[in-house]
Amino acid sequence: MSTPFRKISGGVCAPKGFLANAVSAGIKNPEADRLDLALIYSTSPCVAAGTFTTNRIKAAPVRVSQAHMRDRDIQAIVANSGNANACTGVNGIADAKNSAKTIAKALGLRQGQVAVCSTGVIGLPMPMMRITPQFPQLIDGLDRKKGTDVAKAIMTSDTQHKEIAITMDLDGHKVKIGACAKGAGMICPSMATMLCFITTDANIGKTSLDKAVHEAVEHSFNRITIDGDMSTNDSVVVLANGQSGMPRIKHNSKNYRLFRETLEFVMLEMAKSLVRDGERVTKFVTVKVRGARTYSDAKKVAEAVANSALVKSSWNGEDPNWGRIIHAIGYSRAMIREELIDIYIGSKPACLGGMEASTPMDELRKRVAKDKFEITIDLHLGDAEYTVYTSDMSPEYIDFNRSEYAYWKQARKDGLTKQ
Amino acid sequence: MSTPFRKISGGVCAPKGFLANAVSAGIKNPEADRLDLALIYSTSPCVAAGTFTTNRIKAAPVRVSQAHMRDRDIQAIVANSGNANACTGVNGIADAKNSAKTIAKALGLRQGQVAVCSTGVIGLPMPMMRITPQFPQLIDGLDRKKGTDVAKAIMTSDTQHKEIAITMDLDGHKVKIGACAKGAGMICPSMATMLCFITTDANIGKTSLDKAVHEAVEHSFNRITIDGDMSTNDSVVVLANGQSGMPRIKHNSKNYRLFRETLEFVMLEMAKSLVRDGERVTKFVTVKVRGARTYSDAKKVAEAVANSALVKSSWNGEDPNWGRIIHAIGYSRAMIREELIDIYIGSKPACLGGMEASTPMDELRKRVAKDKFEITIDLHLGDAEYTVYTSDMSPEYIDFNRSEYAYWKQARKDGLTKQ
Repeated sequence: MSTPFRKISGGVCAPKGFLANAVSAGIKNPEADRLDLALIYSTSPCVAAGTFTTNRIKAAPVRVSQAHMRDRDIQAIVANSGNANACTGVNGIADAKNSAKTIAKALGLRQGQVAVCSTGVIGLPMPMMRITPQFPQLIDGLDRKKGTDVAKAIMTSDTQHKEIAITMDLDGHKVKIGACAKGAGMICPSMATMLCFITTDANIGKTSLDKAVHEAVEHSFNRITIDGDMSTNDSVVVLANGQSGMPRIKHNSKNYRLFRETLEFVMLEMAKSLVRDGERVTKFVTVKVRGARTYSDAKKVAEAVANSALVKSSWNGEDPNWGRIIHAIGYSRAMIREELIDIYIGSKPACLGGMEASTPMDELRKRVAKDKFEITIDLHLGDAEYTVYTSDMSPEYIDFNRSEYAYWKQARKDGLTKQ
Repeated sequence: MSTPFRKISGGVCAPKGFLANAVSAGIKNPEADRLDLALIYSTSPCVAAGTFTTNRIKAAPVRVSQAHMRDRDIQAIVANSGNANACTGVNGIADAKNSAKTIAKALGLRQGQVAVCSTGVIGLPMPMMRITPQFPQLIDGLDRKKGTDVAKAIMTSDTQHKEIAITMDLDGHKVKIGACAKGAGMICPSMATMLCFITTDANIGKTSLDKAVHEAVEHSFNRITIDGDMSTNDSVVVLANGQSGMPRIKHNSKNYRLFRETLEFVMLEMAKSLVRDGERVTKFVTVKVRGARTYSDAKKVAEAVANSALVKSSWNGEDPNWGRIIHAIGYSRAMIREELIDIYIGSKPACLGGMEASTPMDELRKRVAKDKFEITIDLHLGDAEYTVYTSDMSPEYIDFNRSEYAYWKQARKDGLTKQ
């Protein structure tokens, strides 16, 4: 694809008519001044689309936002980090609804026009006594320059904030898309919450936006999914307010395709940045499977390899251990024939026809020693392909994830937990 | 079940008519004197049964042994550690067949009466130039006292050898069962080779032994399986030579049930010892799921929880993090209702009705701090149950698995690898 767009600054505030703000409500840590409560607001009504977690345990804000999204006229998103508001029962639902209600009232919207997103520890009640008092300040400070603050406020174990904005030309009209995201965890939405907020001043109808968002998510965020499952809180919310002044994008037109491709680019950039910033990650690895009999088989193989703790450990050790890769291919349940399998590390064959290739080990090691490399697996059984983006797994990852006890201690101080 | 048997010493040599031996062939390390080549032999013909890996990549010895087992009169098992003889093509098959042939010839058996088992690195040719010369010594030293040596010779990253033997009374006849096993890896047969050899002097027919073995494996080794998949080399081989002098065990008789239950006890002891000796493991955790709608749902939930890197990390950190457990339940794809889920740590409720219970956190921490504890999950949707035995995951596990490069260096010295 040629690139009919260019990157600009501003994040979610780059498109016309979007304001944002973020404040510190002490949800992550009452004693540290870290941004953890954010608001995105469009000055005019929006068309909205989104995808939410497929986990059967859904956080309260996901349930509330999904209900609100059915109206499809979301005009503001309120988000927090530090507490997932998951497994919090009817009180959790009430907390999420009350946040939407308070924000809506102050902005002159209906409650159903506000989406609510949370990320953080599961199972602890929301410290509303610290959140609610911050809403007036959050709304008063809404600004065209605070996009980056939102990107910062949704971070949990992320080490860097993640945002992007682009401008494109659609029939002489400048159209912009802005985005921010957070991820971390093990680069596997089944294990860490992923949030992504996207704003655009494109003029697009509900059906078209919905289709574009679902297709783009399938080719971006779902490609960093290891097993197709998601956390209790994963949410991608896209708001389009049409303020670019362009005529409505016709369904399946050339403009639709350009918009959809650009949206996919934005999501893929965000998805890749989540992998790169995974908890204690040292490698960005692209696993490409080709020659599979079916799309589903290609996906099974790619995900089995990308998900194997032993494969990930060997990447961390810069060991080009193709034996562990073929082992994972073997248990993926995809149709394979051992004697046909080729495995490449970078451009070099490590395994041909199910057996070691003649590439010297040191050549292979050089490739695995890079910060970024590709594993290509050819099953030689058909034409189906699938690609996932993943990472290594480090001893520090386990160490980092040994305890969330500090959150509980704080919750007890707050009188929020019985435990 | 009452216990109509008692433990005795002797391992696989405890039952009448079984001899064994093990030697050092320098497969693990030519410079260190570690046992790595073993032989088990029955002085009279046996009835044999076994289960082998379901991985679609099968090591050469698995293919050869499966073919030999079709005859069902296996009388000897030759096993090695240090090299898996997997992904080694036609040469690997030839190596496995040649081992069986040489051993068979020296023992006066047919080639098809010898099973071959290997465990170790995948993708490297077998160093037959070091193995074959050891066969005469291996056979000459066959002895009734060498059962423990076999248990030691099959160890890879195991820190302790694993064996057991029992004696039971069947209608006035003393019947014995002996076993040894190796495992390690991540306590997940999909990621580490598991070998188990069982000998008995019971007099039992092919059909009965086959049924007993498959049922016992389902309730033991398959309960330490995380996803139902297995390594390229997993093998359980059971030999029954009838030398106890008892009359043939009738199918589905009381004696059959006693034998089958005892066999299951032996296998479960071996399976649990594999978990306890997992690579860098500090906790032995039993995950019990009850109240599931179906057996398959109970299994999905138990395995999702036992397989979660985040759950395992929190156990390592002695953090009673039920939020991560319910998260894994949510993505298990089992039928659940969030508001009905109870989670107990030991006997104490951590989560009731999908929300935090009132057990103080410090009470829960005390339980997770133990070397051994139980997680009970009640879905309150039906009567189906499933139990798995698993472990924590430590930073040291990842560190330990970062590289197998030393094996490749040795293989290059041996002129065995092109890489």
